[in-house]
Amino acid sequence: MKFSDIVQRLGLTASDSSLKTAPEHDPEITAVTPVQTGTDGTISYIEGGKFEAYVATTQVSALILPADADLQAQASDRGLAWISMTDPRWGFTQTLSFFYQPYQPAPGIHPTAVIDPSVRLGKNVTIAAHVVVHPDVRVGDDVCIHPNVVIYPQTAIGDRTVLYANCVIHEQTQIGADCVIHSGAAIGSEGFGFILHEGRWEKIPQSGCTILESAVEVGCNTTIDRPSVGETRIQANTKLDNLVHIGHNCQVGPSCVLAAQVGLAGQVEVADHVILGGQVGAANKTQVGANVQAGAKAGLHGTIAPGSVVMGNPASPYRTFLKSSAIYNRLPQMQRTLKELQQQVATLQQQLEAIDTQVS
Amino acid sequence: MKFSDIVQRLGLTASDSSLKTAPEHDPEITAVTPVQTGTDGTISYIEGGKFEAYVATTQVSALILPADADLQAQASDRGLAWISMTDPRWGFTQTLSFFYQPYQPAPGIHPTAVIDPSVRLGKNVTIAAHVVVHPDVRVGDDVCIHPNVVIYPQTAIGDRTVLYANCVIHEQTQIGADCVIHSGAAIGSEGFGFILHEGRWEKIPQSGCTILESAVEVGCNTTIDRPSVGETRIQANTKLDNLVHIGHNCQVGPSCVLAAQVGLAGQVEVADHVILGGQVGAANKTQVGANVQAGAKAGLHGTIAPGSVVMGNPASPYRTFLKSSAIYNRLPQMQRTLKELQQQVATLQQQLEAIDTQVS
Amino acid sequence: MKFSDIVQRLGLTASDSSLKTAPEHDPEITAVTPVQTGTDGTISYIEGGKFEAYVATTQVSALILPADADLQAQASDRGLAWISMTDPRWGFTQTLSFFYQPYQPAPGIHPTAVIDPSVRLGKNVTIAAHVVVHPDVRVGDDVCIHPNVVIYPQTAIGDRTVLYANCVIHEQTQIGADCVIHSGAAIGSEGFGFILHEGRWEKIPQSGCTILESAVEVGCNTTIDRPSVGETRIQANTKLDNLVHIGHNCQVGPSCVLAAQVGLAGQVEVADHVILGGQVGAANKTQVGANVQAGAKAGLHGTIAPGSVVMGNPASPYRTFLKSSAIYNRLPQMQRTLKELQQQVATLQQQLEAIDTQVS
Repeated sequence: MKFSDIVQRLGLTASDSSLKTAPEHDPEITAVTPVQTGTDGTISYIEGGKFEAYVATTQVSALILPADADLQAQASDRGLAWISMTDPRWGFTQTLSFFYQPYQPAPGIHPTAVIDPSVRLGKNVTIAAHVVVHPDVRVGDDVCIHPNVVIYPQTAIGDRTVLYANCVIHEQTQIGADCVIHSGAAIGSEGFGFILHEGRWEKIPQSGCTILESAVEVGCNTTIDRPSVGETRIQANTKLDNLVHIGHNCQVGPSCVLAAQVGLAGQVEVADHVILGGQVGAANKTQVGANVQAGAKAGLHGTIAPGSVVMGNPASPYRTFLKSSAIYNRLPQMQRTLKELQQQVATLQQQLEAIDTQVS
Repeated sequence: MKFSDIVQRLGLTASDSSLKTAPEHDPEITAVTPVQTGTDGTISYIEGGKFEAYVATTQVSALILPADADLQAQASDRGLAWISMTDPRWGFTQTLSFFYQPYQPAPGIHPTAVIDPSVRLGKNVTIAAHVVVHPDVRVGDDVCIHPNVVIYPQTAIGDRTVLYANCVIHEQTQIGADCVIHSGAAIGSEGFGFILHEGRWEKIPQSGCTILESAVEVGCNTTIDRPSVGETRIQANTKLDNLVHIGHNCQVGPSCVLAAQVGLAGQVEVADHVILGGQVGAANKTQVGANVQAGAKAGLHGTIAPGSVVMGNPASPYRTFLKSSAIYNRLPQMQRTLKELQQQVATLQQQLEAIDTQVS
Repeated sequence: MKFSDIVQRLGLTASDSSLKTAPEHDPEITAVTPVQTGTDGTISYIEGGKFEAYVATTQVSALILPADADLQAQASDRGLAWISMTDPRWGFTQTLSFFYQPYQPAPGIHPTAVIDPSVRLGKNVTIAAHVVVHPDVRVGDDVCIHPNVVIYPQTAIGDRTVLYANCVIHEQTQIGADCVIHSGAAIGSEGFGFILHEGRWEKIPQSGCTILESAVEVGCNTTIDRPSVGETRIQANTKLDNLVHIGHNCQVGPSCVLAAQVGLAGQVEVADHVILGGQVGAANKTQVGANVQAGAKAGLHGTIAPGSVVMGNPASPYRTFLKSSAIYNRLPQMQRTLKELQQQVATLQQQLEAIDTQVS
């Protein structure tokens, strides 16, 4: 693809480009690469101060730059084609999509798929080898179901949703449009509900449902449980990484990001635009406010105020955590200081007593 | 189902019901719901002080109440059908099972299942599509094996056990009666045993076996490893949540509950009735006493005394942890106080010296 | 197998054996067992001081001993056959392999496997039931692919590599020779890359690749992501336990060991011979030096110096962590001491002022 084609396709959001100043400089671009390792014929991007130095050294043929005249001049001087954008990473994201689309099998139903006659299929559906679709399932238009997926009864899969290999969609799950469920994820499985009755743990039937709204993404081997009654719900545009656990009755708001290995126990409520770092855990019934950010490994419980940035277990404001954790490593020294002070004060008390006797 | 039918079926454990005082009030019940969101024609339950206020506002038609005359009178005044029990949650559990049973495919062997001729099948067995059962496997009566399950050689699956979709049972695993293995779980896989030999990690053959006693439940994508020699064992009625890891040679006692993302390293011994919160970890050879409760994210090592309730990493008694973690956030203030004291003591020492000179 | 046969096969590395002193004592050995529970006809091993006492009590017929004359004499006195080695655990490992090999299906392609005609298969390949192999895949010699595995396009599987049941190999993944991928692992899946654009999280196409070098082992349900550009790489002889997460663009060096539930965020660099304990997490772009050891649950970020042994979150040198965590539990007492000191100093200040007035 010619660099000028990329410029044209990015044109709606691009602010400036080398084509205007040097239209004859229009390299053939064959791949998108990291700026550090890119070679002749590739395009990359510069984002943030740390990467600006690469403009002087990168071996790529073209760069997506921020709106920065100095960087543009540098790139021109080196004979690099460039385009500048207010958000170069967004330009990079779009450019990637010009060169790459994830593998999608050709539409059609593979003869080894086992599909109940009651299943209602939309238009242009792909169902790959060894998929099993149980009764009373509704599959939307342009859905793509990869090999070995199992879909239980009374579920719905929204338009354009992709289910990657070996994931399992359990009964009474509703998945919205434009979702992506990655390999091995288990959605709508039985919540972990038991009651101690006459000395034994007895299962509480898990009759509720799990709802994923539109554009939800679920990572590999992530698990989302359904509840005994009511629903577990992930709202629109929320993204879950790999190996995340979402317990029964959780309500996760829209546009949240949960990093890998996060665990939400039962009945956790997460508002919108929340970002949870890797391995964060939230106890039963935790309420996480809008725009909260929790650092990796944080332990959440009770109520986390909207907009707060927390770290540690139990979680505290990140400034407090950073200060306290720095002091934590100096605790042995603090303890020594404390002992010295005790001795000094005891000495002072004795000396003062002696003087007092002398003076009186 | 008529409310009177529910009362009759709960009759053995119920202590009282509105039918005795108002037998003509017998609504048709169509579903079990949360008390907050229930509507006309549904039944729910009241458990504990926090939920009692809902008796005044709930829109359900019937309630399972504790043995509390005030609540009974309130419910009667509002025209609600009710039944009272010493453990309303148990009544709720039973009532759920009158209305809901998890999906179970019809018995029989699906033609796409690949079953070795040496496999011995019990009566009334269900084997769904694309299941693979290797040689020398014994499958008990009424076992239900969902799609895409793989069972390796020399294993046994006990009566009435359910294996959900895409789980894998590895060689030499013995699963007892009435177990439930959820989707994607891997049981009896090779323990993580390597030996550094001539600068390389060499695998220690994992020739041992994994034993799940009766009524064990294993969550989605949970992994339980077999050992090099000896056995990994989960005793009866123990319940493991999703994404739990059980290392080689672990011995988990009866009636334990391990929440999601718990990890037990190798040779961990857990006694009976232990409850481990989410993301708890136990180091190699940890010994956890009976009735121990460990809070979420606790790090266990060494010996945890029977009956203790622990939190934190490394785990300490929960009272200690709660006090210390509260002070943790005040460490910067403590450090300031300590510096002030040092200065004050130094000043005192100087002043005292001055006075001492003066007096002498 | 006769004990003398074991001695002969171990002969290259063994330093001494009872056969030289007692050649007539040559029991038939039928199994390898733990020393604590072994019975007549079994062999076990003694490693380290803690296990030496078992020489006096074990019921096994033969022992692999360290080069220790006392233990040899004890074993001879009890009529036990023995062989001594500088590394008895290595002898045990070898002996295990004389008695046990993990199940391997007979070579050949199962008729239910779905294999694209473009796939290039090596010699002596095993492809089990319900496997799916997409276009443009290269499978080496002696590769064994267990049931229900899915292999996406443009991947390569090296010679002698084993893929256990239900694992998924995503597009553009290169797996080296002699690797073992355990059940349910997902390799080369899309990295967790999104960009906030006009208030929505938009996916960054993940066009990069994932490379596993030779003799890499990947545990059950572990996930390894591919990047948007560039590569995710696990170098030779590195072993990952179950439920590990490796983010996009991570570079893990050779001969590392990552225990269960470890999580590496994006662009983490791990040098060689690193050992990470269970549930360790590393933040984005963490750099972990060679030979680092991180204790269970450690939280790594920034740069971890080569050779360091760290614990805690944020991770600190283990001595510091052990001291500080011991003091952590005494924080309430420290706080009380601090308050007492404040009062004592205040009293001293008053007393000194009084004396000062008196003296002046």
